[in-house]
Amino acid sequence: MRFDIITVLPGLLESPFAHSILQRAQHKGLVEIHVHNLRDYAANKHKSVDDYPYGGGSGMVMQIEPFAACIEKLQAERQYNEVIYMTPDGETLNQEIANTLSSVENVIILCGHYKGIDQRIRDVFVTKEISIGDYVLSGGELPAAILVDAVVRLIPGVLSDETSALSDSFQDGLLDAPIYTRPAEWRGHHVPEVLLSGHEAKIATWRYEQQLKRTEERRPDLLND
Amino acid sequence: MRFDIITVLPGLLESPFAHSILQRAQHKGLVEIHVHNLRDYAANKHKSVDDYPYGGGSGMVMQIEPFAACIEKLQAERQYNEVIYMTPDGETLNQEIANTLSSVENVIILCGHYKGIDQRIRDVFVTKEISIGDYVLSGGELPAAILVDAVVRLIPGVLSDETSALSDSFQDGLLDAPIYTRPAEWRGHHVPEVLLSGHEAKIATWRYEQQLKRTEERRPDLLND
Repeated sequence: MRFDIITVLPGLLESPFAHSILQRAQHKGLVEIHVHNLRDYAANKHKSVDDYPYGGGSGMVMQIEPFAACIEKLQAERQYNEVIYMTPDGETLNQEIANTLSSVENVIILCGHYKGIDQRIRDVFVTKEISIGDYVLSGGELPAAILVDAVVRLIPGVLSDETSALSDSFQDGLLDAPIYTRPAEWRGHHVPEVLLSGHEAKIATWRYEQQLKRTEERRPDLLND
Repeated sequence: MRFDIITVLPGLLESPFAHSILQRAQHKGLVEIHVHNLRDYAANKHKSVDDYPYGGGSGMVMQIEPFAACIEKLQAERQYNEVIYMTPDGETLNQEIANTLSSVENVIILCGHYKGIDQRIRDVFVTKEISIGDYVLSGGELPAAILVDAVVRLIPGVLSDETSALSDSFQDGLLDAPIYTRPAEWRGHHVPEVLLSGHEAKIATWRYEQQLKRTEERRPDLLND
């Protein structure tokens, strides 16, 4: 799978893609992540990519031309399944969207900054608008990294133990059960006895009960779906 | 405001905190962000911080002792308002939570990795569990960066134009209206005439109607709250 991310802050995305699972997925050749500096596509000599909003108001608006130039260059090189814009008014990201995206080949991700991007970029180029949640951030860069992370770990071969992704929260519609590791006792706090029993069936039952209980307490909305 | 972030991947957080608004907020002295390497608090010679889960199953579990050592060292130095654990089964982050956190002084943020952290860390130390959304990620590092970004931009003085944060999506319970900038016409795509009219009252009415329309179409749930 290939990601092309267009941003005014390519440096912001350096370390998230250079560590851990995202780094290993690239080294294994399972994922390519290309970060493009939007300013390289500015036609003016100051390399500016934004301007004042029509109709007044605070904040700057990112212009259509640099995005158009970068997107059209990429689209001339290969077919893209989606051109995604990260925006708080997009469809809210969930595990199902991540699952769906993990099976496509090429996606472009546009990162907004300042007040946002000219609406015509969305009308003309964008095929999917995704929000990572109901909160406002400085730009679309961290949301793009979140989306890439959520999607890449679902690509077969990326996680060393494939069951690991399948047993994660949300994959079965329930939150995870509590987990424990050594020491069995720490300052009077004990690991639940059942987990030390070695009795597989009892452990599985306990975990399922804990998942249900935690989901009922914390996220009853997940049980109604 | 001061953030102390505890992680096994301090390098992953380097670039997000070294750019844009988060960088400027630190330079202005409005925010301190300290990233602590959990491995520095491992007592064993291999600097390992995780172990197999009790009761079996895939994935490693982060142990209580290194977290306890790091948290207790920090808490001996100053008072913390919250010890936050980033986890998909936490309370879902929204603009209200970000607003509330932006008025506190010191917070510790714990980043999980691998399968998660020993439940006793949550029971003993954690005062608040936050999820950034219903999807699974490789670790709590990017969610921690998201939380810091969402909170820091609400601290007075961080944004150059304070009205900018107030007019963002969600602050008034509605999504933003479409925005446009130069050129007024691009390949036959025009900016809505009202925005070029210079008529302030008409522009304000149009924007409010667009906000309502977009919220009704995309997020009717926001109107019912």
